[in-house]
Amino acid sequence: MKKLDLTLYFVTDSTDKTETDFLEIVRQACEGGVTIVQLREKERSGLEYLRLAEKVKQVTDKYNVPLIIDDRVDIAMAVDAAGVHVGQTDIPVHVARRLLGKNKIVGATAKTVEQAKKAKEEGADYLGVGAIYPTTTKVVTVITEVSILNEIAVQTNMPVVAIGGLNASNMHVLYESMADGIAVVTAIMKSKDPRNAAMSLKKQVLDNFKKITNSR
Amino acid sequence: MKKLDLTLYFVTDSTDKTETDFLEIVRQACEGGVTIVQLREKERSGLEYLRLAEKVKQVTDKYNVPLIIDDRVDIAMAVDAAGVHVGQTDIPVHVARRLLGKNKIVGATAKTVEQAKKAKEEGADYLGVGAIYPTTTKVVTVITEVSILNEIAVQTNMPVVAIGGLNASNMHVLYESMADGIAVVTAIMKSKDPRNAAMSLKKQVLDNFKKITNSR
Repeated sequence: MKKLDLTLYFVTDSTDKTETDFLEIVRQACEGGVTIVQLREKERSGLEYLRLAEKVKQVTDKYNVPLIIDDRVDIAMAVDAAGVHVGQTDIPVHVARRLLGKNKIVGATAKTVEQAKKAKEEGADYLGVGAIYPTTTKVVTVITEVSILNEIAVQTNMPVVAIGGLNASNMHVLYESMADGIAVVTAIMKSKDPRNAAMSLKKQVLDNFKKITNSR
Repeated sequence: MKKLDLTLYFVTDSTDKTETDFLEIVRQACEGGVTIVQLREKERSGLEYLRLAEKVKQVTDKYNVPLIIDDRVDIAMAVDAAGVHVGQTDIPVHVARRLLGKNKIVGATAKTVEQAKKAKEEGADYLGVGAIYPTTTKVVTVITEVSILNEIAVQTNMPVVAIGGLNASNMHVLYESMADGIAVVTAIMKSKDPRNAAMSLKKQVLDNFKKITNSR
C-alpha cells in the first residue's frame, strides 16, 4: 500500500552540512512529524547519493516516514525507497512508473496545467507545484502561482503539494487554496530546532488549509 | 545471452556536437566494426540522457552492437541497454548487478588489483583499466599501468579492456599485454572518417594483441 500524506513534505539539502548534522536534522524533522522526506542531491556522485540514501532510509524507516528520492530511479530502487520525484528535466513519469511498478510513489513537478495533465496521464501519484515564492518575491507572482495551483488541482483532481520559499510567515497565501500541504527545505533545514519547526509548520497547515479542514 | 567482445570498445562524447552529427559518428563507428558502444554523458539531465540513449540504441541495434550506459542504471533499464559501466564514484557493481539481473553486462573501472578483485566479487563481467596514457604522458607511467593491467588480468582472470588516450600510434604498448582490447573516445569521435578509424583500429588490435592472437 502506498502511504501518501502531503501535509508537510520535507525536501532535504545536505549542502555545507556534515553527514552527522544532516542526518540529525532529518531525524528531528521526522520526530517533529514531517509526512514525507525527499532526498534531493544534485551535486553528488551516484555512489555518494546511494550511500546517503541508505543512511537517510534508516532514519525515515525508524519513524515510518516514506522516503522519496529525487530524480534517480535506480537509487530509489537500490534502497527500496517509497518512490521518486521527477522534475521536467528528469526521467519522465511514465518511465519511472514502468521501472518502479504500481506500488511505488511517483511524484512530478508541474508548473502549468498542461504539465500536470501530462504527469497524471503518465501515472504520477501527486504533483509538486511552485515556486509559490520565487527568489524575488512579488505579490502578483504569488497570486498567479496559487491560482495556477488551484487550477491544476481542479483540472487533474490530483493531490497537490505547494513548494517554493514557504515558511510559517508566508504560507497563509495557501490557506484558501486547493493545496494538500506544503513542501519546505529551508524552513526546516536551516532552523535551529528542526523538530519544533516541523511540529509547528505541520500544526499550521492542519489548522488552516481549506482542503485538509474540509476533508476531516 | 550476454555478448561481450572488448576488441574495440567505443566510448562516446557528445560534447560540442549536434545530435545529428553525434548519431552519425556512432553509426559510422558501428559500421566500422566497434564491438561495444558506451554512452557516457556526465553533464546532461536525466531526461536528455534518456532521450539520447533511446536514439543511440536505435543505431546500435541496427548494427547488432551492444550498448552500455555509463553510470545510470535506471537509464540502462529504461532503454533496455545491454548493460552499464560503473566507475569508482558510481553506484557499486553489486547494486547494479542486483538491479539489472544476471543477463545484463556490468562493467567496472579498476585502477588497482584490489579494485579489480572487489569488482569481480561483486559480479562485474569485465574491467576497464587505465588510464594507460594520462593527460601528461610519461614513459614510466605507461609501463606501470600496463604492468598493473597485466597483474589485474592474471589475478582476476577477467576480460580486461585498456583505456586512456589510446590511438593507432600508441596502442603498441599493449601488444604484449593481457588486454582483450582497447577503449577509445577521441580516436573515433574526433576522426574525420569515424568508420575508417574504427575499421583500422580494430584490425590493428586483432592483428597484434597477444591475448587475441593466442585465443584464435
